[in-house]
Amino acid sequence: MPEAVEGREAVELLERTRTVVNPRLRSTVESLPGSMRRVAMYHFGWEHADGTPAGGQAGKAIRPALVLAAATALGGRPETAVQAAAAVELVHNFTLLHDDVIDEDATRRHRPTAWTVFGTPDAIVVGDALLALALRLIADDDHPASSAASARLAACVIELCAGQQADCAFEHRGPQDVSLDECLDMAMAKTGALLGCACALGALYAGAGEEEVAAMDAFGREAGLAFQLIDDLIGIWGDPGRTGKPVGADLAAHKKSLPVVAALGSGTPAAADLAELYRAPMGAAAVRRAAEAVDLAGGRDWAQIHAADRMARAVDHLSRAVPDPTAAGDLLALAEFVTRRTS
Amino acid sequence: MPEAVEGREAVELLERTRTVVNPRLRSTVESLPGSMRRVAMYHFGWEHADGTPAGGQAGKAIRPALVLAAATALGGRPETAVQAAAAVELVHNFTLLHDDVIDEDATRRHRPTAWTVFGTPDAIVVGDALLALALRLIADDDHPASSAASARLAACVIELCAGQQADCAFEHRGPQDVSLDECLDMAMAKTGALLGCACALGALYAGAGEEEVAAMDAFGREAGLAFQLIDDLIGIWGDPGRTGKPVGADLAAHKKSLPVVAALGSGTPAAADLAELYRAPMGAAAVRRAAEAVDLAGGRDWAQIHAADRMARAVDHLSRAVPDPTAAGDLLALAEFVTRRTS
Repeated sequence: MPEAVEGREAVELLERTRTVVNPRLRSTVESLPGSMRRVAMYHFGWEHADGTPAGGQAGKAIRPALVLAAATALGGRPETAVQAAAAVELVHNFTLLHDDVIDEDATRRHRPTAWTVFGTPDAIVVGDALLALALRLIADDDHPASSAASARLAACVIELCAGQQADCAFEHRGPQDVSLDECLDMAMAKTGALLGCACALGALYAGAGEEEVAAMDAFGREAGLAFQLIDDLIGIWGDPGRTGKPVGADLAAHKKSLPVVAALGSGTPAAADLAELYRAPMGAAAVRRAAEAVDLAGGRDWAQIHAADRMARAVDHLSRAVPDPTAAGDLLALAEFVTRRTS
Repeated sequence: MPEAVEGREAVELLERTRTVVNPRLRSTVESLPGSMRRVAMYHFGWEHADGTPAGGQAGKAIRPALVLAAATALGGRPETAVQAAAAVELVHNFTLLHDDVIDEDATRRHRPTAWTVFGTPDAIVVGDALLALALRLIADDDHPASSAASARLAACVIELCAGQQADCAFEHRGPQDVSLDECLDMAMAKTGALLGCACALGALYAGAGEEEVAAMDAFGREAGLAFQLIDDLIGIWGDPGRTGKPVGADLAAHKKSLPVVAALGSGTPAAADLAELYRAPMGAAAVRRAAEAVDLAGGRDWAQIHAADRMARAVDHLSRAVPDPTAAGDLLALAEFVTRRTS
């Protein structure tokens, strides 16, 4: 089955999600005071830097789609979870704004990052405001799950921060001083936690019990780790025309992504070559050699196999939360979509 | 009556607040994951940079004291508002961490700022985590006011961000291009909003009605503006041994603080001198001349008179929220304490 057909269900689901969630997301962002609004509208792709309208669609909406699909899978009405879905997307974008400042990344979604356009102070402050907007959106919601959802989202943000901090700290350690377990923990905190939280919030808004909420959280976390593994592969071999990020940027930045750390720990000659390359600044040729070394050392295969393993775990958690395969269909389609982007 | 005696009531109130709130504040901060905890423990003054215990007391606790005093004044039990009080202090410290990064301030509470010790990424991420901790603390609270308090605190954070952004933007504008009204709006957002929110949260936790909550918020805001005016005076003429900030730092940084903007708009020859000084980098001698110019142009007197006026408005709001002067005594003592630090 060709990829276009295989992933069509998820693509349609994401489109429907954007149709439902983006108006709420946008009206929430538009409620910001003037000069913060301008930075946020640019970041989401709705405006150019000069404030004129732009046709951006504010990201793929994977996390909001998980919120709505989780609510639906557990018998809830997705329309009651729209504010929660928008809140999760606001939290995601808060992390993007701050991560881009911290990592000094210049490009995001094919455009210059907000800090390069408006300066670091504005990017920090508007990131803060998006986080506050997210938590206000849930607190303002009079759904009975609102309070539990607020606590869960706030706890998730703390985990996201810990993940981002670990990621930065790893960059200052030697090429072979970060273990794969540490790296997996970091990825679970930085990426898995928010996907898990999205699914858990959907479950909460469907009135699900503690066990179902926990299983949904675990589903999202494992799918999130699979997603991160694939994202790391894209960061080395992906198509910048599709991702909006330059190929090899993670290698040039000496980023200890999962395939890299797996390769570095392989004990192969290629691992030693890779470690050597990671000890000095890399030009384009060195980045190509580093990518080859990750492949030769088995980092690429490991990441693909490990992503499949995490997906299997995700499916297992999902079947506990939602025994009916038909009801679980949308969540499964989304999880498969995000982990099939390169293969 | 000597100052020491005059302010004794507030000093004792702040001490009692720290005794009640700091253990909760500290246990909340200690719940952070390892490396973020270390940065936060340093920032609050509980640990040295190397992780050994330090005797710091984590700030004066003016905002938590307002929460507890507001709750008490409206017939609530202050012990039910301890989490809210800790949450407000966490939000205050989130703003300090980020503002120090944004303003590149090197000193806070007589110690090197967190970003100078741990780097900008850690200061950003730990600031984010303190904000999330604050909102989690309130969301986890099963008090009936918790949900309204969450929404109010999140809305306040958005206002704080707008205030900080305006403050930064002003620094990039010419000496006479910022109006006093803009400057007052900025100070209300950056300082008044959180003091107002502290009082409003106390009122909410006492089960007060909308009008009392609004009057309490207005009391805190006006007292907060008076506090900011006094703080701005200290930033020019204050004693760095008491404040932990170098004298004249605001002038050297071309900060458009309220007395400066009032002076610049006075139409006096001293205003022209001050504008001239604000157009170039200032050494110690120029900073002294700028301080004299603010004084000569009437900025110092204006700030003192305006602070007294704001205090009168605060007292007026307070008397609407709490008609019984005995019940309002603690709030009044706190408001007078924060606005009497230099006079």
